[in-house]
Amino acid sequence: MERKMAPSLMCIDLMNIEHDLRLLEKAKVDYLHIDIMDNHFVPNITLSFDFIHGLRKITSIPLDIHLMINNPENSFHYLKNCNPEDIICIHYEATTHVHRALGMIKDLGAQVGIALNPGTPIGVIEDLLPDLDSVLIMTVNPGFAGQKLIPSTLDKIARLRNMLDESGYQNILIEVDGNVSFENAKLMHEKGANIYVGGSSSIFHKESSIIENCHKFREIIYS
Amino acid sequence: MERKMAPSLMCIDLMNIEHDLRLLEKAKVDYLHIDIMDNHFVPNITLSFDFIHGLRKITSIPLDIHLMINNPENSFHYLKNCNPEDIICIHYEATTHVHRALGMIKDLGAQVGIALNPGTPIGVIEDLLPDLDSVLIMTVNPGFAGQKLIPSTLDKIARLRNMLDESGYQNILIEVDGNVSFENAKLMHEKGANIYVGGSSSIFHKESSIIENCHKFREIIYS
Amino acid sequence: MERKMAPSLMCIDLMNIEHDLRLLEKAKVDYLHIDIMDNHFVPNITLSFDFIHGLRKITSIPLDIHLMINNPENSFHYLKNCNPEDIICIHYEATTHVHRALGMIKDLGAQVGIALNPGTPIGVIEDLLPDLDSVLIMTVNPGFAGQKLIPSTLDKIARLRNMLDESGYQNILIEVDGNVSFENAKLMHEKGANIYVGGSSSIFHKESSIIENCHKFREIIYS
Amino acid sequence: MERKMAPSLMCIDLMNIEHDLRLLEKAKVDYLHIDIMDNHFVPNITLSFDFIHGLRKITSIPLDIHLMINNPENSFHYLKNCNPEDIICIHYEATTHVHRALGMIKDLGAQVGIALNPGTPIGVIEDLLPDLDSVLIMTVNPGFAGQKLIPSTLDKIARLRNMLDESGYQNILIEVDGNVSFENAKLMHEKGANIYVGGSSSIFHKESSIIENCHKFREIIYS
Amino acid sequence: MERKMAPSLMCIDLMNIEHDLRLLEKAKVDYLHIDIMDNHFVPNITLSFDFIHGLRKITSIPLDIHLMINNPENSFHYLKNCNPEDIICIHYEATTHVHRALGMIKDLGAQVGIALNPGTPIGVIEDLLPDLDSVLIMTVNPGFAGQKLIPSTLDKIARLRNMLDESGYQNILIEVDGNVSFENAKLMHEKGANIYVGGSSSIFHKESSIIENCHKFREIIYS
Amino acid sequence: MERKMAPSLMCIDLMNIEHDLRLLEKAKVDYLHIDIMDNHFVPNITLSFDFIHGLRKITSIPLDIHLMINNPENSFHYLKNCNPEDIICIHYEATTHVHRALGMIKDLGAQVGIALNPGTPIGVIEDLLPDLDSVLIMTVNPGFAGQKLIPSTLDKIARLRNMLDESGYQNILIEVDGNVSFENAKLMHEKGANIYVGGSSSIFHKESSIIENCHKFREIIYS
Repeated sequence: MERKMAPSLMCIDLMNIEHDLRLLEKAKVDYLHIDIMDNHFVPNITLSFDFIHGLRKITSIPLDIHLMINNPENSFHYLKNCNPEDIICIHYEATTHVHRALGMIKDLGAQVGIALNPGTPIGVIEDLLPDLDSVLIMTVNPGFAGQKLIPSTLDKIARLRNMLDESGYQNILIEVDGNVSFENAKLMHEKGANIYVGGSSSIFHKESSIIENCHKFREIIYS
Repeated sequence: MERKMAPSLMCIDLMNIEHDLRLLEKAKVDYLHIDIMDNHFVPNITLSFDFIHGLRKITSIPLDIHLMINNPENSFHYLKNCNPEDIICIHYEATTHVHRALGMIKDLGAQVGIALNPGTPIGVIEDLLPDLDSVLIMTVNPGFAGQKLIPSTLDKIARLRNMLDESGYQNILIEVDGNVSFENAKLMHEKGANIYVGGSSSIFHKESSIIENCHKFREIIYS
Repeated sequence: MERKMAPSLMCIDLMNIEHDLRLLEKAKVDYLHIDIMDNHFVPNITLSFDFIHGLRKITSIPLDIHLMINNPENSFHYLKNCNPEDIICIHYEATTHVHRALGMIKDLGAQVGIALNPGTPIGVIEDLLPDLDSVLIMTVNPGFAGQKLIPSTLDKIARLRNMLDESGYQNILIEVDGNVSFENAKLMHEKGANIYVGGSSSIFHKESSIIENCHKFREIIYS
Repeated sequence: MERKMAPSLMCIDLMNIEHDLRLLEKAKVDYLHIDIMDNHFVPNITLSFDFIHGLRKITSIPLDIHLMINNPENSFHYLKNCNPEDIICIHYEATTHVHRALGMIKDLGAQVGIALNPGTPIGVIEDLLPDLDSVLIMTVNPGFAGQKLIPSTLDKIARLRNMLDESGYQNILIEVDGNVSFENAKLMHEKGANIYVGGSSSIFHKESSIIENCHKFREIIYS
Repeated sequence: MERKMAPSLMCIDLMNIEHDLRLLEKAKVDYLHIDIMDNHFVPNITLSFDFIHGLRKITSIPLDIHLMINNPENSFHYLKNCNPEDIICIHYEATTHVHRALGMIKDLGAQVGIALNPGTPIGVIEDLLPDLDSVLIMTVNPGFAGQKLIPSTLDKIARLRNMLDESGYQNILIEVDGNVSFENAKLMHEKGANIYVGGSSSIFHKESSIIENCHKFREIIYS
Repeated sequence: MERKMAPSLMCIDLMNIEHDLRLLEKAKVDYLHIDIMDNHFVPNITLSFDFIHGLRKITSIPLDIHLMINNPENSFHYLKNCNPEDIICIHYEATTHVHRALGMIKDLGAQVGIALNPGTPIGVIEDLLPDLDSVLIMTVNPGFAGQKLIPSTLDKIARLRNMLDESGYQNILIEVDGNVSFENAKLMHEKGANIYVGGSSSIFHKESSIIENCHKFREIIYS
């Protein structure tokens, strides 16, 4: 089963991004996870479209763009230069016309992702499966770094894995985002998660270097 | 008359902020101008609250925080650690309870600023004057870097200068933001502007270094 | 099983409606399908309440009014003079109080319809079945004419047919709207659709006359 | 099985609340049910946060606070002094971040409730069960007193009872609100409801005294 | 010049309204000032339409209904039974179609009032004067009792008095609301205010009885 | 002074537009006035973008497009094929970024208009004058045909005429819309109006033919 490591750039040293980016390149991470918030869908603002443009100029690591914004379809023009490996992920709860928005991501030439808040049941994507490349399960409530895992989301990952397998969509990847610590990554791995967004409790853990953390993280999720 | 130079960090090299920040410190700029957008008040997202926290850790240049967000009063908790020289500037058009919001900035211990869109007449601040430290005149429409000056805003600066002087509020500073190029800064200077937000057409102009640009900019506005 | 033909008036010659309406009367269509959009629920505006009033004065064909507007309950006063055969159809996604809105349609004396966007799972109407006369399955994303069928919606029709039969609500009609071409109508017929909204790819197809198109359409859906 | 009686204070004599409250205390009701509306989630305004503060000063009956307001999490600061027996109940349809909001209620130290509109299927709470103490089934559309029971909601109570029992969450209480008359309470009792919100058709019925009505109500629901 | 006393019922003992109302009747207050908030225009909820209906049944003191709600025109149906002396006052900032809303109040048969937030300049009512009976100057920011007077609003009262006199609308009454203490009432009186909304710092001051407070208040404002 | 006649197509026979359009062509009207409503800015829907496209195909009379919609800038892509004589008119009250929206109309290649609701003071356009070709004074509240003239708007026309003349913008045309009957047109003419939107009380008056009404209207406004 495919396993991918996606450091959450919300936790990078924002004052010296290029420096840390080189470390992430050395550590061969699979994606750069980028949280875009609008202070409306979630009550915070973190990274930005300008930030994405800056990244593209200095790295070729695929981007995993997580749009925590209302009506994301209105901002896709900022993401025109995406690559085929990039993921653009919108929230089910953020638009009335979710099927149309997913089609627009496909038209941009990117991988198509949908994110579900902790309280959103997995059944809501029933009619979206043919259009999806990945499903992001929020394992904390979106908007902030440093929160604790919601335990019941582990079972949700397993139920989603099961639903995808049974419906013939086993190729859709499951992404997990929120307190993906070394310990929790192991549990999520058992439930069938594919893409692991690592932040302050793993890849950017203060006790070791980024390189060491990535090494440790890799051992857990690629096992 | 007081004159201040405020580089717009929207135009800094986002991948290597600390590096350029040291140059701005050497150039002795007066403020760091920080645009916070929410994709709703304006259709873009640039810098962020996290970015502000990162800046505070590595520099003591006063911050000039320009909130281009709806209902800014709901996000003031992100700005609790401001310094007395910092400016927090909200848009008149962004909240129904503008007087209350200005009072909340005062309670945060910062300088109190209000910004006016190009189409907003200066008369709207009539009842806010006792609560203001500065008025920001948008000289382009907010949301994007690289736009051209709206010529009629020059006259607006002059009318505001006049209104402030006549009403006994000559201590309120006038800030100008939008295509404040070397040429335009000179014109704005003649009209009575005090704080100059310099971006890609002056302080971050590609043809010279940041230090040289600051030197040139200073000569114009401090004359 | 009941089968009905509902030309989509969004595709009629708007400059000469009465002329084409006489053709539709000759062709004995069952309904006139009228799309009302508000530029908010969907990003377009097409027909209108004034247009409905104009129609009522010159024809007695039942109206199939498809409200693609937010909070439709606030506009029901425009539809007070409906007839018992008319359908008023609102979107599940358009109001927080969908059960109340359906009850208000019943009180207006019209047939009660609910529409589901392509991404909305059929399970959401579980508690609405006792109050429904028809369910409209959007087979393209709402807002525009001339789009291509979303293939997975064919299966959705079949699943809805099954759900209605199994729950004892086999009398609820299934309406299909979006690229109901001659070819697609056949496929939808096999899945159990009852009311067929025909537009530019069938009833208003440019290659033949309205009368001939209706004749051909009828043969497919009434078979 | 636990049974509780919760008079709806929307139906009390608002001009003489203390007087009637003493009667409710004598009748040993289990909760005071308090509807807070915001004219947006529902098109009405009834009781208020000030009203709650007034009640707390003169009675120790636990409060059952039913928030019919948008984004209730923004108003929790008004409910800081709640007691452990108090229920704070928000609507599933009222916030994008329902899981976070439920966690905030837990942090306030109150019992955690969620309310479902008549048209909302019970499956939406699938991922919320570990965080809930009670589920309120609206048996009329929220916003007004004096409406008639929606008959299909009786079956909904039974299905919810079944879902809770089967998933191991039999401790979650089911609350019913809307035309809980003497007759309907009996039917709801058969379906497995636990908390009964009584208004103008039972506890505040005009034909008898509050004390007598409570006595009669108790006999039905505690049987 | 006309002078009126309007106790703010937000400050009454909500648990025993009838009791205190009899005192206000004895004290011969001119109006009962009733704040209706919707948690959106202002972040609070206080009194309600139900509360108004309760008042009407037990008193004939004219009501001064201050709607701090968005789009108040949508709620006028709750105020159909008003009397000719009642004032219905909406906020300028609360509706796009303020002229239409004022006309609807006139059609209800009530006195027509408009309220201005502290930051709203008086010039905005320029085209509304022919349709107004009173203008309410908020002397604190709306939403809460117990705030301090904004000193600059005293001058605003004087400027409004002047504007009304000069434009030939001297019959329009000026109402003041917000920390109208005994001391402040005197200052407002000098500036030309007509209707005085008295709350916790005057009519409902805890140090004396309602009757005594009213007596003292009357002496100040009727002088 | 320039005078123009602009029949309001909201009042045309919607079932036979082409027929009546030929009459308007014979009568040599100057514009076709087209009201586009979105059920949000005003509570109604009338004509549409599709309707405009239909008109363009069969007539070359310049269009006077009156957008009564929120955030009109988001719908300008529907108006890409406008002609240099066409007017696109947005409401001051409908967008936060009115100056930017006016610039976008200029970029579309059309005449730039702004409309003011009856309650909106003319001073709000102070900083927009350099960007305007016309100002539309609503002489009734927008949203419906058949209303009565608001008398005070006559004086508003005169004040606007005066303001434009004094500020050197005498070339900006004043358009009047709302109950522009034969009688009222005369009064508006005296005040300095330039473009007259004629509806059911003039050009489409039932007592005479369209041709005769236009003839009579022309005599009044061109005098």
